[in-house]
Amino acid sequence: MTREAFHAQLDALAEHSGSMCMLAGGLLEQATRSACDTDPAAAQWVVAGAVELDRQRGHAEELVVRLLALQAPVASDLRRVVSALWIVGDVHRMGVLAIHVAQATLRRYPEPVLPVTIRPVFARMGQIGGQLAGHAAAALRARDVALAQAVSARDPEMDRLHRELLAAALDPSWPYGVAAAIDVCLLGRFYDRFADHAAGVADRVIYQVTGNPRHADTA
Amino acid sequence: MTREAFHAQLDALAEHSGSMCMLAGGLLEQATRSACDTDPAAAQWVVAGAVELDRQRGHAEELVVRLLALQAPVASDLRRVVSALWIVGDVHRMGVLAIHVAQATLRRYPEPVLPVTIRPVFARMGQIGGQLAGHAAAALRARDVALAQAVSARDPEMDRLHRELLAAALDPSWPYGVAAAIDVCLLGRFYDRFADHAAGVADRVIYQVTGNPRHADTA
Repeated sequence: MTREAFHAQLDALAEHSGSMCMLAGGLLEQATRSACDTDPAAAQWVVAGAVELDRQRGHAEELVVRLLALQAPVASDLRRVVSALWIVGDVHRMGVLAIHVAQATLRRYPEPVLPVTIRPVFARMGQIGGQLAGHAAAALRARDVALAQAVSARDPEMDRLHRELLAAALDPSWPYGVAAAIDVCLLGRFYDRFADHAAGVADRVIYQVTGNPRHADTA
Repeated sequence: MTREAFHAQLDALAEHSGSMCMLAGGLLEQATRSACDTDPAAAQWVVAGAVELDRQRGHAEELVVRLLALQAPVASDLRRVVSALWIVGDVHRMGVLAIHVAQATLRRYPEPVLPVTIRPVFARMGQIGGQLAGHAAAALRARDVALAQAVSARDPEMDRLHRELLAAALDPSWPYGVAAAIDVCLLGRFYDRFADHAAGVADRVIYQVTGNPRHADTA
């Protein structure tokens, strides 16, 4: 096995995971738009993305199988390959969470899934989620520890907005009824989990580069 | 590489994943009890199980790394090892979902997280979840396709109970307020996802034995 071939294949895998991460971010932003604009066509497009997401995970699995078969890496190299496979799992789940948002839009259609006063909060959470996905993708591709650390630390604004949503839905003066409160809390949770999985990807990138193990996905 | 050594190590991995699956089922049943009995000590015990869950995933990763390093499997054998790692990911998430249930108990304490009339439904969902985990574990260990197919098909009672919960929480006559409705829907979703991941494990077992690929975890 040559080091060059091994690293080229590991880079190809990181590149592919980065592209899945961008797909997940794109799905989340479109799903957010579908929820805020009550746009069933956008939501259906996101839900149809499940096929592409699964196909890309299958391709990532192919890359891993080929890498292991051709290069038979050992020791820390082998750990990096296994870690790369966990990254694919996290990125796939990010896409699935975006699909959950779009499914909520379709479940309530033709009613809007989000009360009008709450939509700006979700619009912002969608932006932040898309950004986290973009940064995680860049960290993956460039093996950039500083960028990965920023994603791993979580965006404090995402946490603050999520807490605001929960507080609003639980406030006695909440005027939109029980069903809307449930939807708001459920969707808020999807964005929170999206950020968690982006942090999980970032932690694995840090591990791959520095060898320093981190575990962040039981949150 | 000898076939015997390869299969012995793959069996050890299946045995370990089976034991993680039993842990996840045990955590879910205890978490259910903590939610139904408003028992913070039980909930804390479940939450503390996160450490054990992570440790066991780490051990599974070790087994995979050792298997790949020592046996350098190729072709379908290699795919089975990669598939085994995905199983570990699913089983780990089952445990994380149980922990989410216990965290909800602690979040509301000293208030109960579940209205008293709803508790029997959750008690039953906890039983079914524990049973699904037990069957998935047995399917893993015995490579039992028939058992795996039963888990993969999902328990219709779990789906029915989940739908009942949502309908009850959204009914205009729901007497317990918004916060309780949100908790009930959120917790109901954790059990539903738990069953999904058990089905994901079962699908991988079917794939490992028959070579017939299945994908069930974007649901």
